[in-house]
Amino acid sequence: MYIYLGVKQIIYLDNSATTKPCKKAVEYMNKALTDNWGNPSSLHILGMNAEDIVNASRKSVAKMLSAKDSEIIFTSCGSEANNMALMSVLARKNRGNRIITTTIEHPSVLETAKRLEGYGFEVVYLKPQNNGVISLDDLKAALNDKTLLVSIMLVNNEIGTIQPIEEAARLTKQLSPFAYFHTDAVQAFGKMPINAARLGVDMLTASGHKIHAPKGIGFLYKNQKCHIAPFITGGGQEDGMRSGTESVPLIASLQGAIEDLPNLQPSLQRMREVYNYAKELLSSDNDITINSFDDGLPYILNISIPGYRSETLLHFLESREIYVSSGSACAKGNQSYVLKELGLADKLIDSMLRISFSHTTQKQDIDQLYEALKVAKGQLRKVLK
Amino acid sequence: MYIYLGVKQIIYLDNSATTKPCKKAVEYMNKALTDNWGNPSSLHILGMNAEDIVNASRKSVAKMLSAKDSEIIFTSCGSEANNMALMSVLARKNRGNRIITTTIEHPSVLETAKRLEGYGFEVVYLKPQNNGVISLDDLKAALNDKTLLVSIMLVNNEIGTIQPIEEAARLTKQLSPFAYFHTDAVQAFGKMPINAARLGVDMLTASGHKIHAPKGIGFLYKNQKCHIAPFITGGGQEDGMRSGTESVPLIASLQGAIEDLPNLQPSLQRMREVYNYAKELLSSDNDITINSFDDGLPYILNISIPGYRSETLLHFLESREIYVSSGSACAKGNQSYVLKELGLADKLIDSMLRISFSHTTQKQDIDQLYEALKVAKGQLRKVLK
Repeated sequence: MYIYLGVKQIIYLDNSATTKPCKKAVEYMNKALTDNWGNPSSLHILGMNAEDIVNASRKSVAKMLSAKDSEIIFTSCGSEANNMALMSVLARKNRGNRIITTTIEHPSVLETAKRLEGYGFEVVYLKPQNNGVISLDDLKAALNDKTLLVSIMLVNNEIGTIQPIEEAARLTKQLSPFAYFHTDAVQAFGKMPINAARLGVDMLTASGHKIHAPKGIGFLYKNQKCHIAPFITGGGQEDGMRSGTESVPLIASLQGAIEDLPNLQPSLQRMREVYNYAKELLSSDNDITINSFDDGLPYILNISIPGYRSETLLHFLESREIYVSSGSACAKGNQSYVLKELGLADKLIDSMLRISFSHTTQKQDIDQLYEALKVAKGQLRKVLK
Repeated sequence: MYIYLGVKQIIYLDNSATTKPCKKAVEYMNKALTDNWGNPSSLHILGMNAEDIVNASRKSVAKMLSAKDSEIIFTSCGSEANNMALMSVLARKNRGNRIITTTIEHPSVLETAKRLEGYGFEVVYLKPQNNGVISLDDLKAALNDKTLLVSIMLVNNEIGTIQPIEEAARLTKQLSPFAYFHTDAVQAFGKMPINAARLGVDMLTASGHKIHAPKGIGFLYKNQKCHIAPFITGGGQEDGMRSGTESVPLIASLQGAIEDLPNLQPSLQRMREVYNYAKELLSSDNDITINSFDDGLPYILNISIPGYRSETLLHFLESREIYVSSGSACAKGNQSYVLKELGLADKLIDSMLRISFSHTTQKQDIDQLYEALKVAKGQLRKVLK
């Protein structure tokens, strides 16, 4: 399906980097800018109206996770929420010093873990197996009674693999009495049904701009039994957990984006069809290797075309108004550490394309991608060995 | 001047809590939502266009401070920027352990200072003199070679007093070789001319929503010679200083708000006239006490009407579509610690109203406030002794 960039029609298959704000997100945002621009902390009606908007959005977020409203803390992005979850160990240092995570987390987890190493914490980085999934035995071996936090992402942002969060959280609770379990669900929220309590996590991160809200809004789900210190301190907004005047327009827009989401179960079924269609069509070309796994979330199809450099392919597609990514947006052209961790050969890593879907993606978009890649192979020179 | 809340006309005199987003802020925001919704980190043109918007806004912010573009780090709000400045001492612990601030800072400074006390830092809180201004002798006495950070606000958010930042920063550089000087300029930015280098500060905080940008955008000015660790780590956005996908629409809106600002010097002159007019008119009523000082920034007029509770007055005015505040928005009805620190009597503190202006405020607004307060005194019962 063509979508609009201003007045221009494009095929956008880079939805794991960011998505186009949907109509309702923009509409709710604008309403908050013109009708409800008060400060939620103000005691007069302008403040109360703004607070109502914040709470309505909180309710819609909580409902998505079958959680309580009071368990949702709005943040400015997924990275802030991940930082908040990880840095919370600082105030709990007396209870232990171990953090467990994986080698394929988002940089906002990995870099923050590294920072915590600098503060004397011991970080265990679990390496995924060749199928992109961590081994529960490895986790078991790493858990001890000095473990303060386990942070494992729900869906990987480059390859789409799903980690066994429910089992990992259960193991954590069994073996590490002081550990909280956090999952970065940025690539999962709004795409697959999530019941936070059933998943058994203490904290969960999500972001609005991956599901058609504007950039600048995310949240941390924090189970009511999870007690951490705030990351940003001050005026005590968000029940003391996140100070700073609430971005009412962005918070409103998140509610709009959630209301515009399709019913998740049938939508996921349809995305599975789109994914399978794409996988079959693209792999019918012998030059194309599929790196994704069939049991991943069908929103990310990771492929390689050995011999062609990712960036060259990306720009060729761009010239035909097809937008994909050569890795995660945050990697900015560096070699993917995720694919490296999965043990992929350099020729696959250097020619990798991440094709990422939205619920608005249609099979015709894949057809156009396929045709464009065929032309690319004809016109571009093979440069990689 | 009446301004609009949806279709309703109101007199809004609570601009230090938040302001109504201006036309250009909303316009720039919407353009970023429809035409330029790419992820600035993406390698394709959608990413580059988004990055251009971020950099254009950065340039307009830097120009306001006569600073370099590279010295501006966008944050999600003033509180985040204040937290970033203060928490930066954590990574510099080997150099010292003293932090100096004042007792009348915004909670995002005070609460963060308290948090740092928990991490073993020694915080010296300077008490203002009766005129609301700190004594440079007190600062001098507090500065030592173990001082890592001095954080003093430029303009107080409740009473409008201006601190002698230039002198304080100079003293700091003279007496504390490892200290960085930070100023919270949230109530000053966009209202008075600021030359960051001439002010001599290493860091400066500001926020968009106090100058008619939407809530959710702020920044930290960081002098190029100031080396601190980032507060939010991850994908390395903002030159590694603030990770997290940039909120392009909010960043764009900040540029819009800045472009819509009047020329600061003549505007400040006009605000001085509005302030003086308000002060004279209101103090012509013997029941009204002016708490503000004449050498403060003429955007905040703090008054008390002994005998009447702030909140009661606030709601009475509200019923007449006049909006003021009974303290800072963040205090949410608690007694003002700022006025307490200035040594004001309880009867003044409990009946305090903060009347805060925008460059759009007109003398007629003050006339209406004055008339409404007269009616209030006639209709409301005196309850405070």
